[in-house]
Amino acid sequence: MLIGTAGFAAAEVAMSGSASMGYKNAETALANDQEGSINHSITLSVSMSGESDAGLSFGASFDILANGSLTDSDGDTLSGVLTNDGPGSVFISGAFGKLAMGDVGDADAQGGISDVGYDGIGIDDLAESLDGAGSSTVRYTYSAGAISASVSTALSAANASQAAFGVKYTGEGFYVGVGYADNNPTAGATTPGEGQTTSVYVGGTFSGVTVDAMWSSRNSETNVAADDREVYGLSASYTMDAITLTAAFSNTDHPTTKSSSGVGVSYDLGGGASVAAGFGSVNGESRSDIGVNFKF
Amino acid sequence: MLIGTAGFAAAEVAMSGSASMGYKNAETALANDQEGSINHSITLSVSMSGESDAGLSFGASFDILANGSLTDSDGDTLSGVLTNDGPGSVFISGAFGKLAMGDVGDADAQGGISDVGYDGIGIDDLAESLDGAGSSTVRYTYSAGAISASVSTALSAANASQAAFGVKYTGEGFYVGVGYADNNPTAGATTPGEGQTTSVYVGGTFSGVTVDAMWSSRNSETNVAADDREVYGLSASYTMDAITLTAAFSNTDHPTTKSSSGVGVSYDLGGGASVAAGFGSVNGESRSDIGVNFKF
Amino acid sequence: MLIGTAGFAAAEVAMSGSASMGYKNAETALANDQEGSINHSITLSVSMSGESDAGLSFGASFDILANGSLTDSDGDTLSGVLTNDGPGSVFISGAFGKLAMGDVGDADAQGGISDVGYDGIGIDDLAESLDGAGSSTVRYTYSAGAISASVSTALSAANASQAAFGVKYTGEGFYVGVGYADNNPTAGATTPGEGQTTSVYVGGTFSGVTVDAMWSSRNSETNVAADDREVYGLSASYTMDAITLTAAFSNTDHPTTKSSSGVGVSYDLGGGASVAAGFGSVNGESRSDIGVNFKF
Repeated sequence: MLIGTAGFAAAEVAMSGSASMGYKNAETALANDQEGSINHSITLSVSMSGESDAGLSFGASFDILANGSLTDSDGDTLSGVLTNDGPGSVFISGAFGKLAMGDVGDADAQGGISDVGYDGIGIDDLAESLDGAGSSTVRYTYSAGAISASVSTALSAANASQAAFGVKYTGEGFYVGVGYADNNPTAGATTPGEGQTTSVYVGGTFSGVTVDAMWSSRNSETNVAADDREVYGLSASYTMDAITLTAAFSNTDHPTTKSSSGVGVSYDLGGGASVAAGFGSVNGESRSDIGVNFKF
Repeated sequence: MLIGTAGFAAAEVAMSGSASMGYKNAETALANDQEGSINHSITLSVSMSGESDAGLSFGASFDILANGSLTDSDGDTLSGVLTNDGPGSVFISGAFGKLAMGDVGDADAQGGISDVGYDGIGIDDLAESLDGAGSSTVRYTYSAGAISASVSTALSAANASQAAFGVKYTGEGFYVGVGYADNNPTAGATTPGEGQTTSVYVGGTFSGVTVDAMWSSRNSETNVAADDREVYGLSASYTMDAITLTAAFSNTDHPTTKSSSGVGVSYDLGGGASVAAGFGSVNGESRSDIGVNFKF
Repeated sequence: MLIGTAGFAAAEVAMSGSASMGYKNAETALANDQEGSINHSITLSVSMSGESDAGLSFGASFDILANGSLTDSDGDTLSGVLTNDGPGSVFISGAFGKLAMGDVGDADAQGGISDVGYDGIGIDDLAESLDGAGSSTVRYTYSAGAISASVSTALSAANASQAAFGVKYTGEGFYVGVGYADNNPTAGATTPGEGQTTSVYVGGTFSGVTVDAMWSSRNSETNVAADDREVYGLSASYTMDAITLTAAFSNTDHPTTKSSSGVGVSYDLGGGASVAAGFGSVNGESRSDIGVNFKF
């Protein structure tokens, strides 16, 4: 048996875990969720790290999800399989910056807003639906003082051109970020990521209230109504002792999509455990969840 | 490289392993087994545990199987994939009892009988074919002294009603358990779990012989012959130094299913290794296996 | 969190990792590779080991690949899944030799040649295309002094007969190996492994140059042109301080398959990291790669 504690030095392969269980409800079922039912999740996070003789840091990380299910290219479902939450990423960093490949995230997504509930009921999804849609596989980040700038793309002969850029300024108790992405998934296609997306992020903690806000606008070259739109969102959290209250809101100028709003509460049980609940409305549908989260 | 020993304190993420290899034979191939062939299995068991400030215990566990194969919803097979042995489970426990979600087991299955062989040739399958058929996803257990009582169900909008209940009394060197389950998988369906199932379990160690016995009876509301039946089984093991001899027997009142019986021997090599063999008859078919089991 | 270092004793479950990232290019896409694109890979290797009271060593090992993709029996692709690199293997060893089951490798493959590049561009594939084609599931190895002999087969009722044998002599700074395999996958079939394959391997380090060479000849009983052929290959590496230069070559007497040749360079960054590049020609197609490799 292999057992670890948090106090080791010279880490080379590290593992941490998280788990949750609870009850989720929605008027209609969501993809990948058993809505109106008991849910649980278990994630084992694997992190590898090292350092070269010249002081370059390098590493790799990925997640093992205990209870995933998958759908293949033919639409058939498969359960009983261990899944990842993206194919992991590998990096090397030094004075030149940080170069990462794999599941690196698009560089234009420099922020986001909070969701509510133990597992999240999706209040943030609308506000975060336009940025970070490019599936980048390589990303370079350079940080100097309070400023961090990133550029990402997906270098693949099978893909059409795409590129994303973002910069973030982190001050004392606040941050401001901007992002820009230009995605052309395949010629003529109108997948959600198509077009030029500009995003602005701002957040910070003021008088004990943590606020996150974002705005994104996408200009579709094919001028498809579903893509050519603005989205924006705001979340605020206030913590009193072990209790944290959160409210979140997302909206769009899209003519047939309704706004999302919700409130949540979380209670810290200590030792890595918390109990949380959230309820709200997503595109006119009522949703709620209640459950516990554990960190190991 | 990450290496662990058994002596650490303050465990948070723990890993243990098991593996087996051997030769299995049967007159006809069994699903998920390469009968009449070399077999091996490797399992890495992941266990996470923690404690809240108020002394609540919580945790999660799942298995990683190295050599699984799967069949998707369309009947296509898939190999080369890491599988789980069920989607794992998450729990929190305290003075109020223990609440678990995920792959929790049905509360009516409070015991069972032993199989024979290094990997098992299925002598116990018939006796254990009626109880624990509900696929519960949430389970509550309360223990007081020698008595442990559990109730389980599958709270899911997609499922029809189901519930299971069980209680077990563990005395000095013996136990008695009873279980009851009422499953209605979907309206009109006659899957194996349908109907009301009552089970009784008894076992203990008497004069060096460990005996386990069980009896289950299912009353199918649709009165399907395959479901409306009784099953029962008995196993006995005797250990002399490093050698353990086991005999097992299962039977039913089902008109076209034959009884199962078999004998096995196991030799403890120490250090977590054992060599074992078993042979017997399952529904009129001869089966045998021989191989080694390792624990890490 | 579980963190490990390299200095523990009494290992029972051990984990090590490797990762790579880089750019690969080829004139045509290869199966299972995103040619002409960014690639990354992450592997977590799980190794379990123990010892019986009588001093027998036993263990099991398998790999977890973070970014695999699979194709099912119906040709549908599946991503987001954790895969293995073969189903792992289990072994027990002592004075009698070593018995292993699972993904054990065919006994006739006693050597091989080096590839070039950070991930390999396939210069060695042609030379290694005939030996080790039997998918053995059980293997016995006996070593005495400088000589190691192995025999392997796939004991499965579903398979037709197959057997492989190999012996290797390892002297001071050199080795010589021979292998023989006789595979009959299924009656009348002409899969690549069909027929009798004889292989010879030789290698060693001479004046600072490490050389590996191999030759294989297959006699197909069905005399299919694609199978009835010879292949051979040679690789040489020279290391100066942190730099290693490698050249590799493969060829065949098959009338329509062209030879492969390539050169590569690797620079050891220390701490488990290296940067490497390779380019060459495989069956008339130009290929190259450049990237980094990490070991944890």
